[in-house]
Amino acid sequence: MRVPYPEVFAVLQRVLLRAGLTPERADLCARLFADTSRDGVYSHGLNRFPRFMEQVTKGVVNLAAEPVRVKTFGALERWDGQRGPGNLNAHAAMARAIMLCREHGLGAVALANTNHWMRGGSYGWQAAEAGVIGICWTNTMANLPPWGTRDPRVGNNPLVLAVPHPSSPVVLDMAMSQFSFGALESYRLRGETLPVPGGFDKEGKLTQDPAAIEASGQALPIGYWKGSGLALLLDMIGALLAGGLATHQITRDVILESGLSQIFVAFDLPSIDAEGTRHAIVEGILASLGPSPAAPPAAPMRHPGARVLQIRKENLAQGIPVAPHVWTQIQAL
Amino acid sequence: MRVPYPEVFAVLQRVLLRAGLTPERADLCARLFADTSRDGVYSHGLNRFPRFMEQVTKGVVNLAAEPVRVKTFGALERWDGQRGPGNLNAHAAMARAIMLCREHGLGAVALANTNHWMRGGSYGWQAAEAGVIGICWTNTMANLPPWGTRDPRVGNNPLVLAVPHPSSPVVLDMAMSQFSFGALESYRLRGETLPVPGGFDKEGKLTQDPAAIEASGQALPIGYWKGSGLALLLDMIGALLAGGLATHQITRDVILESGLSQIFVAFDLPSIDAEGTRHAIVEGILASLGPSPAAPPAAPMRHPGARVLQIRKENLAQGIPVAPHVWTQIQAL
Repeated sequence: MRVPYPEVFAVLQRVLLRAGLTPERADLCARLFADTSRDGVYSHGLNRFPRFMEQVTKGVVNLAAEPVRVKTFGALERWDGQRGPGNLNAHAAMARAIMLCREHGLGAVALANTNHWMRGGSYGWQAAEAGVIGICWTNTMANLPPWGTRDPRVGNNPLVLAVPHPSSPVVLDMAMSQFSFGALESYRLRGETLPVPGGFDKEGKLTQDPAAIEASGQALPIGYWKGSGLALLLDMIGALLAGGLATHQITRDVILESGLSQIFVAFDLPSIDAEGTRHAIVEGILASLGPSPAAPPAAPMRHPGARVLQIRKENLAQGIPVAPHVWTQIQAL
Repeated sequence: MRVPYPEVFAVLQRVLLRAGLTPERADLCARLFADTSRDGVYSHGLNRFPRFMEQVTKGVVNLAAEPVRVKTFGALERWDGQRGPGNLNAHAAMARAIMLCREHGLGAVALANTNHWMRGGSYGWQAAEAGVIGICWTNTMANLPPWGTRDPRVGNNPLVLAVPHPSSPVVLDMAMSQFSFGALESYRLRGETLPVPGGFDKEGKLTQDPAAIEASGQALPIGYWKGSGLALLLDMIGALLAGGLATHQITRDVILESGLSQIFVAFDLPSIDAEGTRHAIVEGILASLGPSPAAPPAAPMRHPGARVLQIRKENLAQGIPVAPHVWTQIQAL
């Protein structure tokens, strides 16, 4: 089932207005959700909206709360998200980091006390569309066993890096887990095994069986000990700069998960070199990647962000694919 | 064979002075090499010194060259390493980023036209010892096939993140490859298979056989498609901000590899919160990680940096382990 973008947007907007968001914030919040599905990241767009509204109902997300600047140190600022909507807070924080970088060459916002930012890539695209380099990350509740242990004690702490380009922006949005639990579920429902090991079974053996990993709760950090270390450092730097909660202090429940710490950094690329010079660097690097003989089991090489523009075009033309039961659920909100 | 630290330092210093480095720079360069072996990173300390001197002899590394500031944009500066010694250039760049962060809250130096920085962790420790958060990375020659291809077209681009703490600094120094070619060689020489898949054999199948990966030249990026994407973005951001070479423009030869692009970022942690508050955040996170039942095949969990302090103490007390043939070679330089 496909629904035209304007209709998706209008329904989300109506729900958010009725829930009490101001018109301007309802517009942006609806747009961030709709754009996420438009770009093919279905798990964090419409499909996530009912859970978001459940968090509003339960008081985890305070729709009325807006982020407040707590401290400023030149190009670095600390903000308090006041447990407001995670995507609005993150968007405001990246917008502020972009402003800071235009003034100082680079800028950073450390945001405490916020909520799930939904699709992290949104804020990478936001920076790239503003013509600057963006780097941001968030911590999460514990959902990944650090290498050498069995209990989930680090978060999968998604990390986003974005480079602007008029036709080929490069945006990487990656969690520190090899597969999300959502992805594991999808493989299981399709009756497929994972293309590479994705976690441990209950005996602690590496496995490609998605059900075994769901049963053990032991997903694999990317690069084993390496992703585990990177998740730890991202959490630590986030909590320190934001003065906010670290993963071990965040409630381990997908609904009650709140009080996250996030970092947004922007580099003012336009002031550095002429447009032509910068674009040529990006184009040269992308051209250097291919073509190349495809190596199974992988699909042909694409740079991060390349597929998004293709899906976006398709979904704007044909409508956004939505699961009928999710759409019914959202319309009834 | 173990050699006392002061003797290691003196021999390196003598070689560098004789090669024409000024006394102050010879001291620092010798210290960076000696400290790397002292901290147990043998591959990038003494063992790498003969190759470094070969690069000097061949004119790849210009001992006399010092980094020069090319542009400044507030808290962000672009420097030209002028193909000087990579470790001296990197140390100068991180020192400058630390100064910038004390003035602006955060600071960054983008360094073009430099050489291999040897042990990346050195500059993480440098930031942590200065009491600030440090993040830095370098690009390299192409040595890793991007996911979906068979030719090495991205670098393993080491990334370093460092958090200060008086007794437990946390310093992560990780390349984007699951195992370095040096590590693959060590496993092969010991007749061991890798603990996890480390690359592809000539048929393009994932393998734990180190010799098969050395033969194919197809090492594995951490997290498959994820590390491949991260390596790409680090290269791109480095080349853009530094205005320097990207991986595809760097000569693929361990001796001739030169003209690297590197980024150094520092966050002025001390100005943000009282010391006690900051230390408590780090300690709380580290305490949250363990103890936990060890999950084979991993060793017990340790945070990045923890083992370094232990090895450092041991090597300072008992002398630095050196391969006799390497030591003979260095003494003859």
